[in-house]
Amino acid sequence: MQPSRAANIATGATQHDSLRAVQWLGDRLHLLDQRKLPFEEAWIDCRDADDVARAIRDLVVRGAPAIGIAAAWGMVLAARHGDDAARALATLRAARPTAVNLVAALDRMQARIEAGADPAALVREAQAIQDQDLAANRAMGAMGAALIRPGSGVLTHCNTGSLATSGFGTALGVIRAGCASGNIVRVYAGETRPWLQGARLTMWELQRDGIAATLIADSAAAHLMKSGRVQWVIVGADRIAANGDTANKIGTYQIAIAARHHGVKFMVVAPAATVDLATPTGDTIDIELRDPEELLGIGGHRTVVAGAQAWNPVFDVTPHDLIDVLVTERGVITQPDEAALRAVFGPGAH
Amino acid sequence: MQPSRAANIATGATQHDSLRAVQWLGDRLHLLDQRKLPFEEAWIDCRDADDVARAIRDLVVRGAPAIGIAAAWGMVLAARHGDDAARALATLRAARPTAVNLVAALDRMQARIEAGADPAALVREAQAIQDQDLAANRAMGAMGAALIRPGSGVLTHCNTGSLATSGFGTALGVIRAGCASGNIVRVYAGETRPWLQGARLTMWELQRDGIAATLIADSAAAHLMKSGRVQWVIVGADRIAANGDTANKIGTYQIAIAARHHGVKFMVVAPAATVDLATPTGDTIDIELRDPEELLGIGGHRTVVAGAQAWNPVFDVTPHDLIDVLVTERGVITQPDEAALRAVFGPGAH
Repeated sequence: MQPSRAANIATGATQHDSLRAVQWLGDRLHLLDQRKLPFEEAWIDCRDADDVARAIRDLVVRGAPAIGIAAAWGMVLAARHGDDAARALATLRAARPTAVNLVAALDRMQARIEAGADPAALVREAQAIQDQDLAANRAMGAMGAALIRPGSGVLTHCNTGSLATSGFGTALGVIRAGCASGNIVRVYAGETRPWLQGARLTMWELQRDGIAATLIADSAAAHLMKSGRVQWVIVGADRIAANGDTANKIGTYQIAIAARHHGVKFMVVAPAATVDLATPTGDTIDIELRDPEELLGIGGHRTVVAGAQAWNPVFDVTPHDLIDVLVTERGVITQPDEAALRAVFGPGAH
Repeated sequence: MQPSRAANIATGATQHDSLRAVQWLGDRLHLLDQRKLPFEEAWIDCRDADDVARAIRDLVVRGAPAIGIAAAWGMVLAARHGDDAARALATLRAARPTAVNLVAALDRMQARIEAGADPAALVREAQAIQDQDLAANRAMGAMGAALIRPGSGVLTHCNTGSLATSGFGTALGVIRAGCASGNIVRVYAGETRPWLQGARLTMWELQRDGIAATLIADSAAAHLMKSGRVQWVIVGADRIAANGDTANKIGTYQIAIAARHHGVKFMVVAPAATVDLATPTGDTIDIELRDPEELLGIGGHRTVVAGAQAWNPVFDVTPHDLIDVLVTERGVITQPDEAALRAVFGPGAH
């Protein structure tokens, strides 16, 4: 273990950062089973690439960065067993085909394999993917938190924390850093219907790290803002178009409109890989519609009359003009628009 | 039975209006048990005033107008059994002491009793209270629906239908009338966390009456508006201040902000008794905070880590400048404000 990493771990407690849901144990991948949270902290050991693919498919591990990291370790396991690399890559790629971080991580592992890397070199590459994600999260956390004044309350949505990444989190990383500095005094979390990631995962993660957190109904966000309890909304992103329009969990757009109405600032926190310059605006982002059944019951408990219809879009798009600040590991962009994004993320920008 | 009432019943089917949750059967009060909806249509018979008080207290019957009507029939039962009227009035008043319609209905019954009315006269008074509520709902339905253009979609919140009133409903009455005229082609219902009145009750009521209805997550309202699917938001009210500021189920305010952002019209539908000229503005309306436990689980199924905090306001206030139309049985007020409300509801206005 390098001293710098030990120092990170040593300072972790004061940063409210104790959770690592994806852990390489030298011969196997140790995954916190997110399906069983918050009532059971069960771990699953993956001993080959098929185990990892199954864990991704079955949502043992969720969150785009976390899935990419797990898949990279899956390729290390394949190499250790002498499994066919092409087959393992295909199996892992197919586990969640739409997650861009999964593809990016496997592309990096494939390039190393094609260059003739030995298993030890593959371990270093997977560890690099994981470490770089954590470093990006810590950098975003520091930059985002620097914008927040002492005594602030913040509202977040869905889960963007250690569970969804290598650790620390994106939006929740900014919140962790803001709580560590003392500037954030309370975090409000929307429960995030229909999957309840806010209620089930974010509340668990924040309580575990000693952060003062309060759950609200998704419909109470505007009333919360009117009460003066929050100065910032801080959320993640699933895709950011070239003009800054941001797709994120359903409900984000509604919160952004309410924030502007009340003069509450709105911050998006996401790694640079989330920016997709090939998508010109949010209007061209496909919004995934999922099974209506997800809205017709909760946790397997049916709540709505049989035969009822439901409309279940999983994401919505917040237009860039409702976003005050975009934070990536490359820096802070205020009032994000196409010119600003192309300057930071376009060809030749870095 | 009078011909006019028979005609109402005969036209009920074309008005999507088949449900009566509070029914006087000549010797007992027949109540649809709303606690068991939507999975069981169980009815409870109340044979004395204590039975009625218990049904109100236990939420067998909910919705302010429905509670008032049930209490009036409770006084009829007390008279039939020769029970002490003062005691029955006290028991019924205490069942839900904050419901203004309960007090108003019992005041009417008490005045008849003090004037020496016999049981038959009390039956007529209770029937009048019930019939007047239904007539008000039908009048509001016709006036509100007249504002809606053909081909419209509407969004509603919570339950304001036959279950909450004598029948037909307030906001849901406008929706019933608009569906009967053919101008409303689809109704979207927010699920209304934490109690899920939209998911459990409104979806059941609309499906039962053959109205095309689609459930959405509360957080999907703004995305729904952006998609162009709805032209009106139509909601009820729990209290309307003198300047038109309106307290209603938590989430209403957030929907109103999103509606204004998208140019979607916002209509409040409530009986005149909901207007409280003694309350100058929404800022002076106390917002009831209920048990955080209601947010920490769903239907007895715990979803959040033990020890978590939650903030559970049951209502919020929509300021009058976000309300395009207020409909009561006394007419339609566009752009409601204090001058308009005092003209319609003030002393000497009717």
